[in-house]
Amino acid sequence: MSSTAAGDEVGPGPRTRVRRLPERARYDRATVEAVLDEGFVCHLGFCVDGEPVVIPTGYARVGDVIYVHGAPANYALRRAVEGDSVCLTVTLVDGLVLARSAFHHSINYRSVVVFGVAHEVEDWEEKRLALAAFVDHVVPGRNAGTRPPSEAELRATRVVKVEIMEASAKVRTGGPKDEPEDLGLGGIWAGELPFRVVAGSPIADGSAPVTAPVPPYVASYRRPGVEGEGRPPA
Amino acid sequence: MSSTAAGDEVGPGPRTRVRRLPERARYDRATVEAVLDEGFVCHLGFCVDGEPVVIPTGYARVGDVIYVHGAPANYALRRAVEGDSVCLTVTLVDGLVLARSAFHHSINYRSVVVFGVAHEVEDWEEKRLALAAFVDHVVPGRNAGTRPPSEAELRATRVVKVEIMEASAKVRTGGPKDEPEDLGLGGIWAGELPFRVVAGSPIADGSAPVTAPVPPYVASYRRPGVEGEGRPPA
Repeated sequence: MSSTAAGDEVGPGPRTRVRRLPERARYDRATVEAVLDEGFVCHLGFCVDGEPVVIPTGYARVGDVIYVHGAPANYALRRAVEGDSVCLTVTLVDGLVLARSAFHHSINYRSVVVFGVAHEVEDWEEKRLALAAFVDHVVPGRNAGTRPPSEAELRATRVVKVEIMEASAKVRTGGPKDEPEDLGLGGIWAGELPFRVVAGSPIADGSAPVTAPVPPYVASYRRPGVEGEGRPPA
Repeated sequence: MSSTAAGDEVGPGPRTRVRRLPERARYDRATVEAVLDEGFVCHLGFCVDGEPVVIPTGYARVGDVIYVHGAPANYALRRAVEGDSVCLTVTLVDGLVLARSAFHHSINYRSVVVFGVAHEVEDWEEKRLALAAFVDHVVPGRNAGTRPPSEAELRATRVVKVEIMEASAKVRTGGPKDEPEDLGLGGIWAGELPFRVVAGSPIADGSAPVTAPVPPYVASYRRPGVEGEGRPPA
């Protein structure tokens, strides 16, 4: 990441300075990368003839670059590459915040907004590495056991890399921040309701016999932000 | 929603026609509204001087309108209202799809992309209704029990309504779609890993005494897309 601030920071720059509730803002690389590495679906925004388009898509971070991919004819990716800049946002929802006042209800979350430029990856070796990174980002340990992409499949995949120019994170944690005069309203329950994502029982594909047992990286699926149940497969 | 197609459909229009994997596209109002009503965090995109900005924010749908809100000085909301159009995207992640080939790995999801115009809500009664809708959208039944917004708080909240001009949903469900020649690779486990969001044990606010018991809408929190555990409060 081309840092716009001293030290190991990736912001703030002109677009990422968090103006509202600046106490929630983080510009350090560790916070930004932790959010990017925990998420696996981003919202990619770009402008087409001055109008915004936001699409959800999978991604993987490799160093200072975020890869996204799609079919060569994928309209959104083509326009993203043609445009001058993209905005790529990742949001993790951690729970609800119930305050005594309606006004102070909130959501606990961690989000990262990245501004960057998108380029198509033409180098085949980089494409292979990016595609492996997608699989292993979502299911750590998965890629090695699968049938690798053929040349035709590589041709049939547009890989786009977003070089991070600026990034910022926003983080809200903890309970409600009620007005002092509302703290006496003990008759209104106030607090947090934490959310978590749980991976359920794996379901073997029914379209052809699956003789392999459920691999450990599925049976004990666990990555930051997702809790495995360790349930037997359905 | 100003429909651009016959019947009770909200698309496709020039911007929402799903070009890739059109079998995943849905334009019917029921599918679009079900996704909007299950989610509560959207990604709002707009263009500032031709450059895209995508921010996560809470929302609530009321009829053909989606409300978002923030502080009056909220930069993003101000620019969204000043711009000609916004794109508002909601994505629900339902699980992972593990194929025999790396190429056919996928994610099960439901998403909605809305194109619309954003207007500031000036009418106080509409603001009150929108703010109540935010609270009840995220925690059904919550709003009535809270201290309602004061005039100062209403002034301190910018409410923006996005009128839906066009919308489309994309839905992927089920197992992997491997190539026929890969179906014999029974030694590679293939299938789905379903994800779900679980609301954990409520945590009472520690900043002042909470004498009220955990209300039923928190203790038995359950809304589309979130499973309550019914655990005792922490």
